[in-house]
Amino acid sequence: MENLINKQWTLHSRPDPDVILSNFKYTESPVQYPKKGEVLLKIHYLNLAPVMRMYMMADGGGYSTESILGIGDVIHGRGVAEVIASMHDSYQVGDFVQGQVGWQTYKLSSMTKQEKFRKMSPRKLPIYYGLSALGMTGYSAYCGFIARGEPKEGDAVLVSGAAGGVGSLVIQIAKALGCSPVIGIAGGQEKCAIVKDLGADAVIDYKTENVSDQISALLPDGLDVYFDNVGGEILETALGHLKKSARIVLCGAISEYARKEPFSLKNYGLVRQKGADLRGFFVYNHPHLYEEAETRIAQWIKEGKLRALMDIEEGFTNVPQSLIGLYTGSNIGKRIVKVSEGPEINY
Amino acid sequence: MENLINKQWTLHSRPDPDVILSNFKYTESPVQYPKKGEVLLKIHYLNLAPVMRMYMMADGGGYSTESILGIGDVIHGRGVAEVIASMHDSYQVGDFVQGQVGWQTYKLSSMTKQEKFRKMSPRKLPIYYGLSALGMTGYSAYCGFIARGEPKEGDAVLVSGAAGGVGSLVIQIAKALGCSPVIGIAGGQEKCAIVKDLGADAVIDYKTENVSDQISALLPDGLDVYFDNVGGEILETALGHLKKSARIVLCGAISEYARKEPFSLKNYGLVRQKGADLRGFFVYNHPHLYEEAETRIAQWIKEGKLRALMDIEEGFTNVPQSLIGLYTGSNIGKRIVKVSEGPEINY
Repeated sequence: MENLINKQWTLHSRPDPDVILSNFKYTESPVQYPKKGEVLLKIHYLNLAPVMRMYMMADGGGYSTESILGIGDVIHGRGVAEVIASMHDSYQVGDFVQGQVGWQTYKLSSMTKQEKFRKMSPRKLPIYYGLSALGMTGYSAYCGFIARGEPKEGDAVLVSGAAGGVGSLVIQIAKALGCSPVIGIAGGQEKCAIVKDLGADAVIDYKTENVSDQISALLPDGLDVYFDNVGGEILETALGHLKKSARIVLCGAISEYARKEPFSLKNYGLVRQKGADLRGFFVYNHPHLYEEAETRIAQWIKEGKLRALMDIEEGFTNVPQSLIGLYTGSNIGKRIVKVSEGPEINY
Repeated sequence: MENLINKQWTLHSRPDPDVILSNFKYTESPVQYPKKGEVLLKIHYLNLAPVMRMYMMADGGGYSTESILGIGDVIHGRGVAEVIASMHDSYQVGDFVQGQVGWQTYKLSSMTKQEKFRKMSPRKLPIYYGLSALGMTGYSAYCGFIARGEPKEGDAVLVSGAAGGVGSLVIQIAKALGCSPVIGIAGGQEKCAIVKDLGADAVIDYKTENVSDQISALLPDGLDVYFDNVGGEILETALGHLKKSARIVLCGAISEYARKEPFSLKNYGLVRQKGADLRGFFVYNHPHLYEEAETRIAQWIKEGKLRALMDIEEGFTNVPQSLIGLYTGSNIGKRIVKVSEGPEINY
């Protein structure tokens, strides 16, 4: 192990307000051999997400106080890693795990609960799925839709953020379960085309169409399940089209991040009038469903019923630039960076 | 039957905006014998509620288009009645029923679904309970709290409108089920004293106390179930005190009726962040639980664990004045008017 070099990206300065290259500092240090209770992980893939800017801000961007980085800290991030040395009873060399690895190429870990590591079952699928359909994104789509949306065959389903990581999977899970029709909401022609291509029965472009009119036309009897990734105006619009006992899953609220004042929901009374449910969803409340989610999603992938939107870049050196690209570019699908060479399929 | 006289109160003019005596017209007519498929009901007790003003308005007061009365129509209203003649296979002389009888002393009925009649099981309790704890009020409290609130023993429960018909029952059901603490919100010293007397562990007076501060003091860890009878500001305040996976039952929204613009819920995002549920409740969605509700509530009444707040007046002649009193007076408990002499206990 003494020959291995750990490469790291640490926080050098805070975004003000945009993330720029000089916010990051590159360092190298020798890799240590694990002590009792530790494993040595080799990191293969890193997950990038817009929320990372929040971790870099002094106040956590109002997102979380637990994840705020100090100057000099390794940048937080989830990844897929391989156990290459183990002094831990529960892990063996060759195991793949996904969890909190940080922006580095190796990590010594005691595999604490806070790092939220999860051993990846062999699925005969590429390991990077552990950062999308077979990881937290997939669990979010599956647990949120199944446990909170309680869909039945034939249910009319509406999904916002339908070209996003979670939304694009919900569209496909809804179709696989026999919901009908399954309608997506996305912004712009390109994203709408992708959602249609994933199997949605129809897609509403919120940038050019009147969302309420389109829902009325497509779902004249209203909707059974609305899977909300955006909050705000689109949530309010969807509440105007509920069937009796409809379920609204509040999964994300991307529209709220850029707002100065929180959005005020004027028509919450419809939830009472329709006997409907507005259900908050937090994926970490549903760990008992992760294995089931993985098994079924892996099966759907193999059957060609489900496709994960991924945008895979290469090179540890490029990680900061890949993150910055998320704020300016129009990536489709989850951005993942391959940071090491190694096995690609998890047998 | 030809000797019997049916007394009726009909709509003579519409409230503008207040309900006044001259809105009503008294009439009498002979009672007819039932034809095949009909029953003749003798009405013993009538239920009065503020919503009745809405039925009398030309636009239904924005409440419902189904219940709008025409000039000359008998005023809508639920009541408890006795079958005194029957040509209907499902009803026998001596049966007691509760349902839509209208403001009259006799009714010929085919017992259609729209009239929402329900036969009252013999409970060895006064028949007027069929308009409170053993009728829709009781079903609302039981089904709303049990099916939508999903309370567990030890849950911290908050109930608004706690001196109201439904709220006062929810307080007592929560205590009977071992929830703790059970906190009521009511307005004014007299109502708060009554809620305390019903067994609430504490009562917040929203007219004189800061509701949020009081919740913080009484429930520092937050609440598991909030049973909402009022909507608006108090709902918004309660959302600020949710435990993870808390359930909010939206049962009523009395605070919305007098508002020109609907209340806007600024902090709906907390539902998502807490993985909580905002659940609309409509009692007619839960008919399969009515019998269970009645059986358990009757048992709690007999065990002295539950007391129905009722305000029982006398005399069919006084029914309009009894309704008007609801808008100006400060009645405690459900207002019921005894309109006929007859058996008082349902054996």
